[in-house]
Amino acid sequence: MNPTRSVFIVSDHTGITAEILGKSLLCQFPGEAFATESLPFVDTLDKVEDAAKRIREAWQASGMRPLVFSTMTDDDARAILDSTGAMIMDVFAHFIGLMTKELGRPAIHLKGQSHSASNETAYHERIDAVNFSLAADDGLATQKYEQADLILVGVSRSGKTPTSLYMAMQYGLKVANYPLTPENFEKHSLPATIRPYKRKLRGLTLTPERLSAIRSERRPNSEYAAMDTCKRELDLATQMMAEAGIPVLDSSTRSIEEISAILRQSLVKGGR
Amino acid sequence: MNPTRSVFIVSDHTGITAEILGKSLLCQFPGEAFATESLPFVDTLDKVEDAAKRIREAWQASGMRPLVFSTMTDDDARAILDSTGAMIMDVFAHFIGLMTKELGRPAIHLKGQSHSASNETAYHERIDAVNFSLAADDGLATQKYEQADLILVGVSRSGKTPTSLYMAMQYGLKVANYPLTPENFEKHSLPATIRPYKRKLRGLTLTPERLSAIRSERRPNSEYAAMDTCKRELDLATQMMAEAGIPVLDSSTRSIEEISAILRQSLVKGGR
Repeated sequence: MNPTRSVFIVSDHTGITAEILGKSLLCQFPGEAFATESLPFVDTLDKVEDAAKRIREAWQASGMRPLVFSTMTDDDARAILDSTGAMIMDVFAHFIGLMTKELGRPAIHLKGQSHSASNETAYHERIDAVNFSLAADDGLATQKYEQADLILVGVSRSGKTPTSLYMAMQYGLKVANYPLTPENFEKHSLPATIRPYKRKLRGLTLTPERLSAIRSERRPNSEYAAMDTCKRELDLATQMMAEAGIPVLDSSTRSIEEISAILRQSLVKGGR
Repeated sequence: MNPTRSVFIVSDHTGITAEILGKSLLCQFPGEAFATESLPFVDTLDKVEDAAKRIREAWQASGMRPLVFSTMTDDDARAILDSTGAMIMDVFAHFIGLMTKELGRPAIHLKGQSHSASNETAYHERIDAVNFSLAADDGLATQKYEQADLILVGVSRSGKTPTSLYMAMQYGLKVANYPLTPENFEKHSLPATIRPYKRKLRGLTLTPERLSAIRSERRPNSEYAAMDTCKRELDLATQMMAEAGIPVLDSSTRSIEEISAILRQSLVKGGR
């Protein structure tokens, strides 16, 4: 393993953009050891000086030039960070210049525009979606299905709830979820509650091994978590979803972000 | 209003990084009209050609050079996008080159490294945190408070649940939340359940106007949503939190992302 290099996320606001950018880039160098420190809300020149001091100290301590991912809207603030000699990768410094030229108008240089509540409509749409997804979790509030963008189905603990919440939070989509249970399987047909919404249904599945492991965390050594139960429920659910023509995704090999992005794309393509 | 310019988010994976970057940058030009289209999972050269065709068509239709925010790990794919003549802002093209030089080793050029489940530990930590926050929502599972990183308190509908879930999803923090109710206020002291965890407590508040509006959506014309009730509950909660020395944030002027970033910083500073 290489010696550890310091990485700083410096932002005059939440730092979310810089953090995600930094993470994406650092993942491209898996052989390196990085120690990442987030410095959000660096929104006065005094705080920028403090951040610069931290960066210089880290350099001195490790002997390695630190990497800095930043989103600083203020030119003076950027100049102070630059003066450390660390490797500054500032999103705004690079791209805003290009965009200003292309658009023929200056940027407003206001901090925290993208993660504030100032874009009222989009923000409240997302919060409404989160509240909807919480209210319509796990087969609740089925009378609201008319309003849902999507209804996720699958056996208990197949990843429906976190996926619903992520889609609501990230994309402002109203995502309900409905569990497929042993009682449903006995009837050998899609539950009557969800049948009218076939176009909105998407299935989640996973391997019996993974399901059994997840259920065991909740109820160790239970019938519910037993490998046989998991296998049987998954088989029946898969069959039921296939017969009903519901598109199904596997959550044992994909992250919630990946599943959400795929499901969102299916909505766009389906002409929501 | 200016004519609408097409913006494309093109990625060989989920497109989350490119989307967040694009949003941050577009927000810096509020006078412009943009029509944004996401093209995720553009992971074969055929799909890149399709994306390039979409970009050229949009240019022709609007007469304005499109902006493209992209995260393409493949050089050939980037060359195809470049050939459209649109303004390509590729995160990897720009920053990976700089990093390769600094780190003295090539990037792995593997797509979807940051939003896949391949980084097992970090991913499962986040999913565990989401499950924790769901289980410990709204005063439930108080026996798990020992494991919580934070416990949010505040009156009903002050924004505790979405904030808890966002912090879990984004930062992998286990965030419980506990409602302060009229019964608590009658006793004039912090509920016994949360008293032992004073160091982990953080308060949320908002204006009576905003609270009344939010509660009215749930239960219109109710005592619960009445301005008087909201004002009284908020006054008593604020007093209780102040007496207990609990740091309090206002959710009527801040987004969930902002509150979450501030709360996370308070943890780091407090030496979690």
